[in-house]
Amino acid sequence: MKLSELGEFGLIERLRQLVPTAGPGVIVGIGDDTAVLETTGGTQLLATCDMLVEGEHFLVDRLTPFQLGWKALAVNVSDIAAMAGLPRFALISLGIPPHLEAEYLDDLYRGLAALAQAHGVILVGGDTVRSRRGLVVDITVLGEVPKGGAVLRSGARVGDLVLVTGQLGDSAGGLEFLLQGPAGGRGFLPQEVGLIKAHLEPRPRVREAQAAVRAGRVTAMDDISDGLASEIREITGSSGVGARLWVERIPISPALQTAARAWGKPALDFALFGGEDYELVLTVPPTEAEAVAEAIQKETGTRASLIGEILPAHEGLQLESADGSRVGLTRSGWDHFLGDRSNQGT
Amino acid sequence: MKLSELGEFGLIERLRQLVPTAGPGVIVGIGDDTAVLETTGGTQLLATCDMLVEGEHFLVDRLTPFQLGWKALAVNVSDIAAMAGLPRFALISLGIPPHLEAEYLDDLYRGLAALAQAHGVILVGGDTVRSRRGLVVDITVLGEVPKGGAVLRSGARVGDLVLVTGQLGDSAGGLEFLLQGPAGGRGFLPQEVGLIKAHLEPRPRVREAQAAVRAGRVTAMDDISDGLASEIREITGSSGVGARLWVERIPISPALQTAARAWGKPALDFALFGGEDYELVLTVPPTEAEAVAEAIQKETGTRASLIGEILPAHEGLQLESADGSRVGLTRSGWDHFLGDRSNQGT
Repeated sequence: MKLSELGEFGLIERLRQLVPTAGPGVIVGIGDDTAVLETTGGTQLLATCDMLVEGEHFLVDRLTPFQLGWKALAVNVSDIAAMAGLPRFALISLGIPPHLEAEYLDDLYRGLAALAQAHGVILVGGDTVRSRRGLVVDITVLGEVPKGGAVLRSGARVGDLVLVTGQLGDSAGGLEFLLQGPAGGRGFLPQEVGLIKAHLEPRPRVREAQAAVRAGRVTAMDDISDGLASEIREITGSSGVGARLWVERIPISPALQTAARAWGKPALDFALFGGEDYELVLTVPPTEAEAVAEAIQKETGTRASLIGEILPAHEGLQLESADGSRVGLTRSGWDHFLGDRSNQGT
Repeated sequence: MKLSELGEFGLIERLRQLVPTAGPGVIVGIGDDTAVLETTGGTQLLATCDMLVEGEHFLVDRLTPFQLGWKALAVNVSDIAAMAGLPRFALISLGIPPHLEAEYLDDLYRGLAALAQAHGVILVGGDTVRSRRGLVVDITVLGEVPKGGAVLRSGARVGDLVLVTGQLGDSAGGLEFLLQGPAGGRGFLPQEVGLIKAHLEPRPRVREAQAAVRAGRVTAMDDISDGLASEIREITGSSGVGARLWVERIPISPALQTAARAWGKPALDFALFGGEDYELVLTVPPTEAEAVAEAIQKETGTRASLIGEILPAHEGLQLESADGSRVGLTRSGWDHFLGDRSNQGT
């Protein structure tokens, strides 16, 4: 059905029936000038927004509208998770090309709803406008955290251990498959589809973060949106420390290993520099790190790996192999000669 | 300066220096995964967002970047005002064409900052992405209101009087000037510039709404974004009532009267159907209406006019002239034959 047949009010009415729009804390939802919300007593409010633009962040022929809706909300929920918060409310602004079919937006909202329901997020507002030059999806998510309980990037201390959830690089591997297509004109193999799903349907680690902060003192946390190298740099930079990552401990899936080998690229590159994993990287005092990793695995089934340690700032960022050799890690590559920070060779 | 020379981090750093990013309630502002905010005890949270798309909501050659920043924030603050709330925090998502000059964004942020400072709004988050097909500005504003103090659209009662702030239609008149240009190749006259400013630099009526709710019982309120006819329809529809507006009492500026006469159009059309005035329309019990109007004028200097009364639902929406004649009012025109709701003739 054409959007012009529905009109703006018809469209809004149609879409709001597809997503949770009422629930705890929602005094007034969609339909007045603003939403009226109640947060839980003793909490602080978390707020984040992420904009996805057609042709920049997604290609409409490479992902389903369901996946677009899912991912647009997931990347925001992931930010709330990385503060150790619980997501509560979402507002969505949509810039819609007039030729778009109403069914496309239905499916986008179904993807949004699936992720929202999984995390108890309620859609409380938004804006629906015309955008002749392409689809734009901008979502704001509000969450909450016990007062003083937000885990910032800046709290890592020398001696802390570095943990990550899940496996890294799958999303970047999936993107590579999406852009290149499957090898030799065949369809995608199941393990390849797995990588592609990691890219298109990321799972924000809300429960993993909750399990971690219940089990021990998480000193810093970040979600991995720009690759492990970039996120560990954010944490060490904000915290005024350095870090050493143990190469062999960085969790990389067999599917990514296989794919990377076929492409003739190091799988580690995908994990370090690929991005969009939406896993968590956290730092924990050494006495509590094992307990935190165990709690994450036990309570959520998600793998948690100890992959490094926090060092004094002058040590910089290092990658250490099992044979004891070390190289320096930059945002997008590594230095073969430690100490030469300007060298960004591979 | 080209954005490519600045890079994303350089751009964000440059822009954040132009706007208020710290202040009361901001525990963590821009720079971590999310903002961490504290709201005032005993309040409820208000949340709203509005997206402006180049070519749809604005033309970059018809308004300055300062005005774009001002207006993008103002339309959101206006929604908070219409709930009788105080705006507190803003998040801005920007889709930026790569060819845009950094100075354009500087000025956009200066406009944002001017409006933010006038209302104590703090910028706490956002997203800055590339958008090759045009500039997109999406802003979310969070506000607060004493618990139970939000003024909804749905509370108008039969017998209440209808008030509006300011003068209506100036913004639509200004848009007409922007699209047509000044008459006869001359420059714009001062009063024409006034109309254009009403369109490009709307003043959200936060203080007026506060004065109103302090002075009396405001039963329903809305900001006039889509024209008085549309907003009064929202209020009466949500409240299950009808209304009669007194034509001669609808406040129309001399500048708009003059311009409308020159264009051969009724000035009233601009006031009823033009939109983007961002004035307030409110309903107040008759015993308190005069006091509310007086309080608005006294405390803020903004005109407040009694323009009609709330009727039972079966009376519908009526426009009454001083001579006692009545016509029916639709969203985009009026019916010459009251009772014939399907007739949308002018």
